[in-house]
Amino acid sequence: MRARVDVLTLAVSDLERSLEFYRRLGLTSEGVIGTQYEGDETTPGGAAVMFELEGGLILALYGRADLAKDGSVPLTEPRPGAFSIGHLVSSREEVDAVLAEAEAAGAELTDEPHDRPWGIYSGYFRDLDGHLWEVIWNPRAAAG
Amino acid sequence: MRARVDVLTLAVSDLERSLEFYRRLGLTSEGVIGTQYEGDETTPGGAAVMFELEGGLILALYGRADLAKDGSVPLTEPRPGAFSIGHLVSSREEVDAVLAEAEAAGAELTDEPHDRPWGIYSGYFRDLDGHLWEVIWNPRAAAG
Repeated sequence: MRARVDVLTLAVSDLERSLEFYRRLGLTSEGVIGTQYEGDETTPGGAAVMFELEGGLILALYGRADLAKDGSVPLTEPRPGAFSIGHLVSSREEVDAVLAEAEAAGAELTDEPHDRPWGIYSGYFRDLDGHLWEVIWNPRAAAG
Repeated sequence: MRARVDVLTLAVSDLERSLEFYRRLGLTSEGVIGTQYEGDETTPGGAAVMFELEGGLILALYGRADLAKDGSVPLTEPRPGAFSIGHLVSSREEVDAVLAEAEAAGAELTDEPHDRPWGIYSGYFRDLDGHLWEVIWNPRAAAG
């Protein structure tokens, strides 16, 4: 396997609502695509949202039930803590600002941002479906 | 927020075991780092694994209990279906080959790879902690 990730797909309960959330955070998308693939009880539908990120990575949103069918895994309740998405910024103030922006867009901040023992300053928010994002300032690394 | 994801952190139950799994899949890492940050009942430890991927994205492995503490979220059982990681390859045969490689490394294939209504050929595997990877050939896109 080559060392690459091309798409990160987040399961969501409401595509339009999550599309709006991520648009409020500044991501751009042409909107919901693939609605012509309707799916049924066993076949996943195709409706999805794609955000093209810097570097070419696609952040996709896909219905929870559709992802469970597409991946042939059980449909379970969303649980936090299985993974997190790290977003690097270039200052301590920018960590605070992005977290405030996320909260204003409807995210939940899980606690106050703070210095971690390994030398970063960061805080987490959970998106509308509980997916964890960590907003990070690493004084030892230049961000973006 | 800028349109970028810098790190994708997967919560794992056993760092060394998952390090070996991803190494068998061809990813390279200097091994477990951050063990000097021991953590305690409320402070997360710093032990983690980092794989630098093409394009600069970091795929990180981090203990489940540490991620729950670090993100201030409850420690819950791993559940599949909250997200998936998409890996593009350049032929139908390569989808089959990567899935076989993953299975040989200890992954579980959730079903046979097949053509999807939206024009891709893909199959899924679950890593040792249940994280879903979709290996995709899209005839309309050049991979990598």
